[in-house]
Amino acid sequence: MKLLMSKIEIEQFLKKEFPQVSQSFKILALDAGSISMLMNITNEHLRPGGTVSGPTMFLLADVSFYLATLSLIGPKSLTVTTNCSINFLRKPSEDSLISETRVLKIGKTLSVGDVLIYSKGNKKPVAHASLTYAIPKD
Amino acid sequence: MKLLMSKIEIEQFLKKEFPQVSQSFKILALDAGSISMLMNITNEHLRPGGTVSGPTMFLLADVSFYLATLSLIGPKSLTVTTNCSINFLRKPSEDSLISETRVLKIGKTLSVGDVLIYSKGNKKPVAHASLTYAIPKD
Amino acid sequence: MKLLMSKIEIEQFLKKEFPQVSQSFKILALDAGSISMLMNITNEHLRPGGTVSGPTMFLLADVSFYLATLSLIGPKSLTVTTNCSINFLRKPSEDSLISETRVLKIGKTLSVGDVLIYSKGNKKPVAHASLTYAIPKD
Amino acid sequence: MKLLMSKIEIEQFLKKEFPQVSQSFKILALDAGSISMLMNITNEHLRPGGTVSGPTMFLLADVSFYLATLSLIGPKSLTVTTNCSINFLRKPSEDSLISETRVLKIGKTLSVGDVLIYSKGNKKPVAHASLTYAIPKD
Repeated sequence: MKLLMSKIEIEQFLKKEFPQVSQSFKILALDAGSISMLMNITNEHLRPGGTVSGPTMFLLADVSFYLATLSLIGPKSLTVTTNCSINFLRKPSEDSLISETRVLKIGKTLSVGDVLIYSKGNKKPVAHASLTYAIPKD
Repeated sequence: MKLLMSKIEIEQFLKKEFPQVSQSFKILALDAGSISMLMNITNEHLRPGGTVSGPTMFLLADVSFYLATLSLIGPKSLTVTTNCSINFLRKPSEDSLISETRVLKIGKTLSVGDVLIYSKGNKKPVAHASLTYAIPKD
Repeated sequence: MKLLMSKIEIEQFLKKEFPQVSQSFKILALDAGSISMLMNITNEHLRPGGTVSGPTMFLLADVSFYLATLSLIGPKSLTVTTNCSINFLRKPSEDSLISETRVLKIGKTLSVGDVLIYSKGNKKPVAHASLTYAIPKD
Repeated sequence: MKLLMSKIEIEQFLKKEFPQVSQSFKILALDAGSISMLMNITNEHLRPGGTVSGPTMFLLADVSFYLATLSLIGPKSLTVTTNCSINFLRKPSEDSLISETRVLKIGKTLSVGDVLIYSKGNKKPVAHASLTYAIPKD
């Protein structure tokens, strides 16, 4: 696996493609086949009981794996999620979320990998997602 | 399976538990082990290209299966998603989404089933999700 | 969706492709987008406690969805499973297993659907699987 | 997480519980929250084209995560798989398979984690599975 996009190029792509959500995300680390991101949690992401909603964790997993894939194939915006299987492990706190993503396979038509999600400052993961993205033909 | 909550009781529960999202949802049909819901799509749910975001479809699947489960066990708000595996099948239109949910098993500790999601007016599903919820002890 | 293979053509294909397991399977019903199969259970499939092993149910789901896909695209033996998410719902009896498969999407590169599995003579499903197959280019 | 069973205790348990398959498996490494296993591949596991069948990889993932769970809770044989989501990444060779398992959460009622599967001597994984097991009450 080889990086085809830099951290700055990915952040610019995110701003353009996900204008409604891009300001919530920050890339913490990027390598060939892995990415770590931080997601700011605001009122709209919270649920009664002082926790973060499931769709918010799904969104972070989805964005993280999308960007990890694009970093390896270039900015193909038609790349789409085909499957996500997510296990919710523990109740998150109200803190920011952190994701750690690995790409397990980058093929011609499919990208497959997984994402661990943490509440900031806690070493036990709150969710684990496996994702598949379909890569469009050139 | 036996219904323990009426349509009106579920709608009131939804308003109380999901205040930030409840006004987007409407119950179309309710039976013992199945529910059909409509989700209004607004600007915040859309993505470039005139389509609905993945997390929005995830939210509809999650809410639909949550309410299908509660209709069979009563209003236990500590019931939480443990797993969701979702396949995205086709690009949704910008129209409202409709869900059709079946409960395949309602046990003492787990509820398992699936949800088909459609764009209103189209017979081909846009997504299919399988979900597991953990039911708290009394 | 349109049937491209008959029941007899599929059974002949199965004999050729899965020689080690084909004699365990029988097609009960076939339609455009759905198939129902019966799997004979023998000693090798059983587990202590008088039940059928998980890998056996996985095998039935996999074979059923494979054949449902081929019935719609023709005998392309390079068609391979890319994802299977299976929920085990109840302990099966030692009886034969029966599968009911639906194809939810048949695209150019992916086939997606699900399979319900029953112990013969029992109306409550023992397992539910969602599967994705990759279809090779011509 | 704390180990409650030694490598030898687990191997003896496996012999007793999975008599039909135990001789195929060997524990390579065991730690609190992780296990690595080797599975011998014989004729019955092969498919035309010189590759290992999907149900064989499912079996290895299932056995590996089962034993990783028992190593942390003790020999509770009623512990059962509730969900497995498996992604097939590459065609395995005919060689032995090796699994690397991590337990992400061990709760009172559920154990959740994942398994990477390799063909011996190849660093690129052939499959990745996420599993959930239900733990019986004492």
